[in-house]
Amino acid sequence: MLPIPFLLLLLSSILSPSSAADFCVADLTLPTTPVGFSCKNESAVTVSDFIFSGLGVTGNTNNIFKAAVTPAFSSQFPGLNGLGISAARLDFAIGGVVPLHTHPAASELLIVIHGTILAGFISSSNSVYYKTLNKGDAIVFPQGLLHFQVQIGGLPAVALASFSSPEPGLQIVSVALFANSLPSLLVEKVTFLDDAEVKKLKKVFGGTG
Amino acid sequence: MLPIPFLLLLLSSILSPSSAADFCVADLTLPTTPVGFSCKNESAVTVSDFIFSGLGVTGNTNNIFKAAVTPAFSSQFPGLNGLGISAARLDFAIGGVVPLHTHPAASELLIVIHGTILAGFISSSNSVYYKTLNKGDAIVFPQGLLHFQVQIGGLPAVALASFSSPEPGLQIVSVALFANSLPSLLVEKVTFLDDAEVKKLKKVFGGTG
Amino acid sequence: MLPIPFLLLLLSSILSPSSAADFCVADLTLPTTPVGFSCKNESAVTVSDFIFSGLGVTGNTNNIFKAAVTPAFSSQFPGLNGLGISAARLDFAIGGVVPLHTHPAASELLIVIHGTILAGFISSSNSVYYKTLNKGDAIVFPQGLLHFQVQIGGLPAVALASFSSPEPGLQIVSVALFANSLPSLLVEKVTFLDDAEVKKLKKVFGGTG
Amino acid sequence: MLPIPFLLLLLSSILSPSSAADFCVADLTLPTTPVGFSCKNESAVTVSDFIFSGLGVTGNTNNIFKAAVTPAFSSQFPGLNGLGISAARLDFAIGGVVPLHTHPAASELLIVIHGTILAGFISSSNSVYYKTLNKGDAIVFPQGLLHFQVQIGGLPAVALASFSSPEPGLQIVSVALFANSLPSLLVEKVTFLDDAEVKKLKKVFGGTG
Amino acid sequence: MLPIPFLLLLLSSILSPSSAADFCVADLTLPTTPVGFSCKNESAVTVSDFIFSGLGVTGNTNNIFKAAVTPAFSSQFPGLNGLGISAARLDFAIGGVVPLHTHPAASELLIVIHGTILAGFISSSNSVYYKTLNKGDAIVFPQGLLHFQVQIGGLPAVALASFSSPEPGLQIVSVALFANSLPSLLVEKVTFLDDAEVKKLKKVFGGTG
Amino acid sequence: MLPIPFLLLLLSSILSPSSAADFCVADLTLPTTPVGFSCKNESAVTVSDFIFSGLGVTGNTNNIFKAAVTPAFSSQFPGLNGLGISAARLDFAIGGVVPLHTHPAASELLIVIHGTILAGFISSSNSVYYKTLNKGDAIVFPQGLLHFQVQIGGLPAVALASFSSPEPGLQIVSVALFANSLPSLLVEKVTFLDDAEVKKLKKVFGGTG
Repeated sequence: MLPIPFLLLLLSSILSPSSAADFCVADLTLPTTPVGFSCKNESAVTVSDFIFSGLGVTGNTNNIFKAAVTPAFSSQFPGLNGLGISAARLDFAIGGVVPLHTHPAASELLIVIHGTILAGFISSSNSVYYKTLNKGDAIVFPQGLLHFQVQIGGLPAVALASFSSPEPGLQIVSVALFANSLPSLLVEKVTFLDDAEVKKLKKVFGGTG
Repeated sequence: MLPIPFLLLLLSSILSPSSAADFCVADLTLPTTPVGFSCKNESAVTVSDFIFSGLGVTGNTNNIFKAAVTPAFSSQFPGLNGLGISAARLDFAIGGVVPLHTHPAASELLIVIHGTILAGFISSSNSVYYKTLNKGDAIVFPQGLLHFQVQIGGLPAVALASFSSPEPGLQIVSVALFANSLPSLLVEKVTFLDDAEVKKLKKVFGGTG
Repeated sequence: MLPIPFLLLLLSSILSPSSAADFCVADLTLPTTPVGFSCKNESAVTVSDFIFSGLGVTGNTNNIFKAAVTPAFSSQFPGLNGLGISAARLDFAIGGVVPLHTHPAASELLIVIHGTILAGFISSSNSVYYKTLNKGDAIVFPQGLLHFQVQIGGLPAVALASFSSPEPGLQIVSVALFANSLPSLLVEKVTFLDDAEVKKLKKVFGGTG
Repeated sequence: MLPIPFLLLLLSSILSPSSAADFCVADLTLPTTPVGFSCKNESAVTVSDFIFSGLGVTGNTNNIFKAAVTPAFSSQFPGLNGLGISAARLDFAIGGVVPLHTHPAASELLIVIHGTILAGFISSSNSVYYKTLNKGDAIVFPQGLLHFQVQIGGLPAVALASFSSPEPGLQIVSVALFANSLPSLLVEKVTFLDDAEVKKLKKVFGGTG
Repeated sequence: MLPIPFLLLLLSSILSPSSAADFCVADLTLPTTPVGFSCKNESAVTVSDFIFSGLGVTGNTNNIFKAAVTPAFSSQFPGLNGLGISAARLDFAIGGVVPLHTHPAASELLIVIHGTILAGFISSSNSVYYKTLNKGDAIVFPQGLLHFQVQIGGLPAVALASFSSPEPGLQIVSVALFANSLPSLLVEKVTFLDDAEVKKLKKVFGGTG
Repeated sequence: MLPIPFLLLLLSSILSPSSAADFCVADLTLPTTPVGFSCKNESAVTVSDFIFSGLGVTGNTNNIFKAAVTPAFSSQFPGLNGLGISAARLDFAIGGVVPLHTHPAASELLIVIHGTILAGFISSSNSVYYKTLNKGDAIVFPQGLLHFQVQIGGLPAVALASFSSPEPGLQIVSVALFANSLPSLLVEKVTFLDDAEVKKLKKVFGGTG
């Protein structure tokens, strides 16, 4: 009896190539597609492609937000490509904030690891949902809705966020308004903010126009 | 030869019930699902369920925006439910604006029918894309991104928008900040706007807190 | 305090590259995928990729259909790629018709801009839904179903159609039967049309076989 | 040591209820949704819900098509609901045909079990793809495209078709044109067929108008 | 000038009802659908529906696995329904293991919070990917593949897992084989395990047959 | 009157290129994507790309399983790429078995062509569903769940399986445990099997470690 060669024959006919079924580790050098990066050749994939260590490192909160976002999206963690999930670490110093923002392509599930955070979102029908969250509490922000996280109390805070897409995107309203070349007059027209306020914040965020 | 009865026999065995395959006219009285409304019983569906006449009516622009949005989403046009598409009519008086907003659940394709509009969007990587559009020009706003439309020139404007979802949602930033009960201090914290500006706009938009 | 550099540091770590999340402008020179074209490199994307002006131009109705279809699909309007939406302009001379056809990959929402159109579709359970539509009226054709539009009355007509896919496809039954090399005997067998009719229409539509 | 109670405690906390994850056996008495039938209560599901025996029965080909289609869609086979797959058996007498048709909601993979079949489809770009298939040969018809199957040779034929949806739909062109109340004048207008042909086939297929 | 009433008029016409677009909080008493639970009426939704506190509680590891899984799926956390994401907390005593298992409906992203874990998966092409993970390390398990987590070293371990579905499902191989009524002879036939081993483990896991 | 040139003009403007809409025949030499292979250039596509003849050939059952699986996935049948469907032929000698396995990416619909098969699956909530199937009987295995097929009675058996994905994947539990380099100690830890059993089966299946 010679089971092994026959078995291998069976397996090789079924299982090669199979990269389309299981995973698609991002090859950042190839063209992208409407649903993510092209795949690295399966023969070059190793366990390291499925591991990411950056979420264990405290982010640098020495900035205007007193907060830091450390993303583990498919751009940083290629093994996530095509798998419908990603993560990020949020660090907050005292007074830290992740300002009003959206993720255009994903819902977010946030879990508080240390400290206390006030978090919430606003719905399409303009209802407001927010609450104070302590260690172990989780909140979900539905896809595309404006939401925010604010550190409160006397201790720095850490949270882990996961997203329903390997590339959730991130659009911070104040950055979109005040940190690029969108003309001040246009910003004022589409927000009803006054000219002085817009120009002050353009200076803070480094915008032009 | 008796082809008809046999033919009908064949058809009835294949084609009844078929409501799951073709369409799902919204029954607004039934529970909703993660992908839209439950379906009206197929026997009660008529051609009227697939027709909507509201887009031919000029919207009332006598409001703070000097603009009007007339939606034809599945809530108003039940035949769209489950079909991945909807529409809206935009009317602009002189000086009209649809302020900075997102559609959390859809991309938008806008076509100018009358007049001139300045329209644009901001990407997740904070690039700004905007242009003046004349009659017949079309622009696409990718899903979930902040975008705006401003009437320009001496004539009122009309545009038709279509969306990649029967319920695209609509979240106007200034409405989300200033027309609900989100506390002023929290608005200031998550936007970097100053207190006077927030309180002034809360009054304009009718917000509290 | 040096907020701007830190802010930029934060942003660059989060937001680059982000093309997978926001949009995927079609690069027509790269290989295609099961879900559309590969993406143009984000650094080469400009606002022009998101603008299309062809829908403002009257189509040439001097043909057998006395009608014209001007598509704004991702092949013509690369910014639509991956965004789940597209559009087309329909022009009808007096007596014009868009004959019985399907869009294999999309539902269609049609809005009458000028004139009067009789439009309808047939369902899988062989029910017929059709109605006369005037300026401002809209109708939806569910994905994949046979439908048609016929100009009626004394004025030319114009309509705008939007689709739930950037490449809806278009398959006109009479073109599929009479404008290619499908043998006449086979056409007759699969349609129950008689030989003279098939041969007459093969001549009209330029088919062979 | 008392592992079993603790184990059961663990399992019950994780695994109940789980009907949303694994399967959704159709309950034909409940309202339908845009993606299929509502689910039968999991406690009432038995192995019979996942079994269907109708594909082993020869269809009655004593009709105008000399062919029979025996569907195993979710309407007939409730266990398929929500699972993205279904099947049908095709029986052909000598001279049998499944006329030109589409499945609006599914691609089809057909395998010949007995006899010989000529099968093919027409693409959106009007290319024709067809071939003679013998026992064991398979062909795929992409979603929504017009296709057909014709028995050839001296033996009856049987084929099994599978579909990429639990409710693929079926729209036979000649049935859609000639077996309902669509007025003859309108049929002629949208097909370019002449009046005598339309009226003759309306009689054959039992249509009115 | 009376902007507020007009504004409210505008908003109410656009935004009601909008539950289909933003979120669909599970109503566990209504029928389920192929894509999750039916939605709670939007008027009854509160911020509590979007909050879950169970992940902060240490699981009871006094069981055969010396480990505990605390799920935050849509069954436990109704706000997740329809949003494509969920989470779970894993607690490991010394020697703890989450045995070989799959999530039929989701990919998993696991982050180590305390201690050290050996984790890995096996691909469809039978390649093995596993590694020792310390605090802060993350690993992704592609959808549907067999994977495992084993505590190692001298300290208990905690991990947070997130999933690309609100109901990922969980199928532990040893539980599926040894903790139900699947007959021993059948288990042996489909696994190649010998009779004594199967009967021994049926006793450990509480199976019958 | 010159209808043909105008007609062709119309068609060419609408229909070229259209490869994104209809089909995407796999080009196995190009990079893969998260949703399958890149497409072969449409101009090189022929009818042969949509035909597969391997399912008519009896598989070689002279192996340890006394069974054979002949796949018609997109790797073997490039026309299936992107179309959400595939198939396989199962041959069973007397005593043949397709051992406990999952398809991570697809539901399966199996139809018995010859002989008798005992087939079943286990759900996430650990319920067991299995039954004896005769010629013509069909069973569905929901996506990702453990299932098996065993020949019974005195005749060889043949079945046809179809899948809801062009690359369903295949993960046989005993192969995943005993036919690769996963260390025996780790196998024992994650399965509760004893050391002698694991080492015996590692020898049978050719595993190492």
